[in-house]
Amino acid sequence: MDEPLNLVLFSGTDDRLQAAAVLTAGAAALGRPVNVFLQYWALDAFRRDHIDRDHGLAPEAGTEGREHVDHLRQAGQVGWQEVLRQAKELGPVDIQACSLSMDLLGIEEPDLDPLVDGVEGVTAFYLNAGAGQVVFI
Amino acid sequence: MDEPLNLVLFSGTDDRLQAAAVLTAGAAALGRPVNVFLQYWALDAFRRDHIDRDHGLAPEAGTEGREHVDHLRQAGQVGWQEVLRQAKELGPVDIQACSLSMDLLGIEEPDLDPLVDGVEGVTAFYLNAGAGQVVFI
Amino acid sequence: MDEPLNLVLFSGTDDRLQAAAVLTAGAAALGRPVNVFLQYWALDAFRRDHIDRDHGLAPEAGTEGREHVDHLRQAGQVGWQEVLRQAKELGPVDIQACSLSMDLLGIEEPDLDPLVDGVEGVTAFYLNAGAGQVVFI
Repeated sequence: MDEPLNLVLFSGTDDRLQAAAVLTAGAAALGRPVNVFLQYWALDAFRRDHIDRDHGLAPEAGTEGREHVDHLRQAGQVGWQEVLRQAKELGPVDIQACSLSMDLLGIEEPDLDPLVDGVEGVTAFYLNAGAGQVVFI
Repeated sequence: MDEPLNLVLFSGTDDRLQAAAVLTAGAAALGRPVNVFLQYWALDAFRRDHIDRDHGLAPEAGTEGREHVDHLRQAGQVGWQEVLRQAKELGPVDIQACSLSMDLLGIEEPDLDPLVDGVEGVTAFYLNAGAGQVVFI
Repeated sequence: MDEPLNLVLFSGTDDRLQAAAVLTAGAAALGRPVNVFLQYWALDAFRRDHIDRDHGLAPEAGTEGREHVDHLRQAGQVGWQEVLRQAKELGPVDIQACSLSMDLLGIEEPDLDPLVDGVEGVTAFYLNAGAGQVVFI
């Protein structure tokens, strides 16, 4: 697999972001390049002053799901922010903000957490993705 | 990239449909064929008499997300319906309704917006998709 | 298409699981190997004592969507559990639980429905997926 793994992150809830971070770290550990493209509510979650907040869970998590997540966190589970930071040390993980979503949310580049490497349009995303898998989360 | 991009649209909220339309238009602008397969709530959003309605946003959008979307729309942002119409002028974009979801929702082909090119089953979807990327939104 | 189709199931609502089951069965009917990787709320839905419950629908389904789903079920539509069982008779469908999600939800392997073939980590998932399409549902 020389082709990169390409993740379009749309959802900004902690459960989906955790799933995305694990998929990213797993691919990076295998030496695969990973391109992450942040849109909408996922982009919002990467704002410098938002990133360490509680971003909620999908509605279907329910009270029981919430308890499981809180319990694991209290037991020391690392959050998606830290999983992504570690993934960047394992291999080439490039995280780009979608320029259209930046406009939508009124975000400027300095507002973004240092995890984000830049801002690009959808065309650049496709060119970097090549024939690699594209996963929308 | 000679392989088509294949989008399975499941969700019928305006934010996910807008993300899907931008991915479609971006691929079409690069000359890639795009196959769109409409299921469940996304199919419902393509009903002739529903398509121009407000289809809501993902719950996680919250009040603030709603305001951002409304603000951009008032500033003249084109909706996903129009982005898809423009994408069809840029390149080969084929939009098919899933036959099983047609049955589920009790929709007949004349009920669908002219953006939809036909009705097909999942087997036809796979055959058209070939080895191209499949993205579920 | 010699490459497998790879589905990461995250959501545990009946509508998304039904869509996933139909995509699985369609690929299996075409002779393609299918790898299913269960995370989070989807994994929870595959617990032996949960699988035949009502798992709800995405919030956007609304009352009308609920009625459509109930109506089809009363008319004899087969649920996703049975569609997956049938898919396993059609072709090679391998369903694996994500080990991290097992920990999150406090699930042990005997708690899982016999539809689940085993437990694996994300690395094994990628190695089995090869260059095949990856779809996150």
